[in-house]
Amino acid sequence: MYHPRILNVQERQNLSSMVSLAEIQAASLLLEGKVIRTPLVYSPTFSEMTGGEVYLKLETMQKAGSFKVRGAANRIFGKRSEIGKRGVIAASAGNHAQGVAVAASMAGVAATIVMPEWVSLAKQEATVGYGARVILRGGSLEESIAHAMQAALDEEMTFIHPYDDPLVIAGQGTIGLEILEDLPNVDLVIVPVGGGGLISGIASAVKSARPGTRVVGVQAAACPSAAEALRRGGPVEVGAGPTIADGIRVKRTGDHTYPVLRDCVSSVVLVDEEAITSAMLQLLERKKVLSEGAGAAPLAALLSGVVPLAQGEKVALVISGGNVDTFLLERILKKGLYSGGRMVQLAVVVEEGAHSLPALLQILARAGGVVNRIDQERSAPDLPVHQMRVILELEVRGQAHREALIAALHEAGFAARPFPGGY
Amino acid sequence: MYHPRILNVQERQNLSSMVSLAEIQAASLLLEGKVIRTPLVYSPTFSEMTGGEVYLKLETMQKAGSFKVRGAANRIFGKRSEIGKRGVIAASAGNHAQGVAVAASMAGVAATIVMPEWVSLAKQEATVGYGARVILRGGSLEESIAHAMQAALDEEMTFIHPYDDPLVIAGQGTIGLEILEDLPNVDLVIVPVGGGGLISGIASAVKSARPGTRVVGVQAAACPSAAEALRRGGPVEVGAGPTIADGIRVKRTGDHTYPVLRDCVSSVVLVDEEAITSAMLQLLERKKVLSEGAGAAPLAALLSGVVPLAQGEKVALVISGGNVDTFLLERILKKGLYSGGRMVQLAVVVEEGAHSLPALLQILARAGGVVNRIDQERSAPDLPVHQMRVILELEVRGQAHREALIAALHEAGFAARPFPGGY
Repeated sequence: MYHPRILNVQERQNLSSMVSLAEIQAASLLLEGKVIRTPLVYSPTFSEMTGGEVYLKLETMQKAGSFKVRGAANRIFGKRSEIGKRGVIAASAGNHAQGVAVAASMAGVAATIVMPEWVSLAKQEATVGYGARVILRGGSLEESIAHAMQAALDEEMTFIHPYDDPLVIAGQGTIGLEILEDLPNVDLVIVPVGGGGLISGIASAVKSARPGTRVVGVQAAACPSAAEALRRGGPVEVGAGPTIADGIRVKRTGDHTYPVLRDCVSSVVLVDEEAITSAMLQLLERKKVLSEGAGAAPLAALLSGVVPLAQGEKVALVISGGNVDTFLLERILKKGLYSGGRMVQLAVVVEEGAHSLPALLQILARAGGVVNRIDQERSAPDLPVHQMRVILELEVRGQAHREALIAALHEAGFAARPFPGGY
Repeated sequence: MYHPRILNVQERQNLSSMVSLAEIQAASLLLEGKVIRTPLVYSPTFSEMTGGEVYLKLETMQKAGSFKVRGAANRIFGKRSEIGKRGVIAASAGNHAQGVAVAASMAGVAATIVMPEWVSLAKQEATVGYGARVILRGGSLEESIAHAMQAALDEEMTFIHPYDDPLVIAGQGTIGLEILEDLPNVDLVIVPVGGGGLISGIASAVKSARPGTRVVGVQAAACPSAAEALRRGGPVEVGAGPTIADGIRVKRTGDHTYPVLRDCVSSVVLVDEEAITSAMLQLLERKKVLSEGAGAAPLAALLSGVVPLAQGEKVALVISGGNVDTFLLERILKKGLYSGGRMVQLAVVVEEGAHSLPALLQILARAGGVVNRIDQERSAPDLPVHQMRVILELEVRGQAHREALIAALHEAGFAARPFPGGY
């Protein structure tokens, strides 16, 4: 348990917007044994890359694969007596759905989740798998939320807000307490920001107990609602482009969360899609951690240099969840292989005839390229009839190896060039 | 620190073959701050699936991605003064290479790694990336080892054995101490077994401190060297088939590790490739942990029921490493999507003509199937000229959804059938 030191006037003022430390400590007690005390794991690789001391708070290993169950469980158990026999209802396209489903199931309460019609099959199934009833309604998340709130009134269910609720915020804040327990002299905590529930809870906990620690938020540049709210002096609705970090694609900061963001968060920075994808890949390849886009945003911010970090500073990255669709994961892996120079597509024009292909493959084998796929294009409009184009997908060691391989082909008289999109 | 209770005669006899608790405790002190104190994380999902209380010891997050650095660092730092200026040499096709490279680099000692000629490009690069010199020599791991041992003599380097060395075993044993610290009343520890270094260390630690705890080993059925050694009463060389668990594909149990296996391990069980692949997928999908084949073997053993577990028993699975090639990971993901019924390939014969394909796709869209890929086969030898075959790769919710989708196609007059390999 952490007790704040005596605060100065500014700090006391800031505290007024926060969820109190006492509420977060109460949440911690309530959640004990109900949620997983997730590990904070040191990363030598990311430390070396940044000059700091980098730790990962792995909410990817939380029940249902994200931090959401903390807030949902604190809300449901915290006001258990107010929940009627029709149970709880929530609207979500992702993690909040599963968090509420799991929390309700632990509390023995029925859960109904309204999801937008376009939500992936996998997410529907996951939510049903945790025991909830799923209703598909609404062309946008906002419409699903409106439907859920109306249904809550009509059918006497308790609406569980994904972020703009003090009990939900206090539940997420338990992550802040755990970070402080494991790393008492943490200098900086970086947190993904959607509606602001996660960062409000964590900032309330961290700033109460250790006012000198910076808390920084990260959003996808495609949906900068919190950054824009801070710039404009209040929550505003922003346009939202497509983003791989769908978990933090929230168009408007909450009314409860905004003041905490304003008072307790050092800054909210933006990261682009390329940086998020690269951070996901690096978490997987270097730390064997599967993170969703939102969860990788703090690492993206750190590695892209938008968050200043002094030599040796201790930084905790909140890897908020790991629920990434397998189909998306596959695409990311492939992209990583290409961008890392480990996979390449080459087009080689060869003479028709039985000996061309074995000769070509022989050279590749000698040069150490591993052939994943071979396509042949015969009678292509740009080629004479006696020639064909062979398209190769190759595994290589990296860019130097790729160049050496192309050089070996040229030397043997094969005109190889990168196939469109193949670099 | 754990101290053994007073042991009975049998237990005392068993201890004679072990690495002593004192040696493992010394390793623990020596390794502090040099290796990562990896987390032991509870898994509600695997607990529910088995009726036990299942925890994962995540050596996937260890430096260089596997437990190997513990033994290597204990060996190198433990006899630092005996290592000459030419440094250390080891032979490995995988994790031991990277473990030795990292340990040597921490100790400021040069490292040479001999790898078999067929080792993947990625593994060579990773080893070089950790600062070692890589030599490709030998058509098998055994040949690489022979070369490394000879080179150690010729060039005055210190040979670091991957498992058959008391200091290496003691280093791996620190995992046992950490499990006991985090879960003092653990009933069962399941450990992958290659040459036996990891399980010898862990069993020595666990059996010394808590003789009632069972330690069970797991091998791939494709390479059952330890199981066979126990059956035959001594180390023997076994044939080794191809296995996804290449990290435990060791054909002969060590001379130092065998007696510990014989005296301290309850049993060594075997798992097949299907079970290992499925366990890898489940670790990734349910716990967001990337494991290599060997690392997933303990979960494979638990889920396939070959290790008896009583209701409520506490079991720790040693997930020994996470170094899996991205290309292999991709194939596993795809296989998982097919075997989980989430991806399906259908062949549909349609009339040639502009309207066939839109009509077909319309039905799929209405039935909620997501089309990943479309191939058209014109002028197939088994079809009349006015018909073509459309081959579809579809994302579906599961097997029931797949059947519903096929039914919808049939109802609309499209004869759809599973494409070879597509189920």
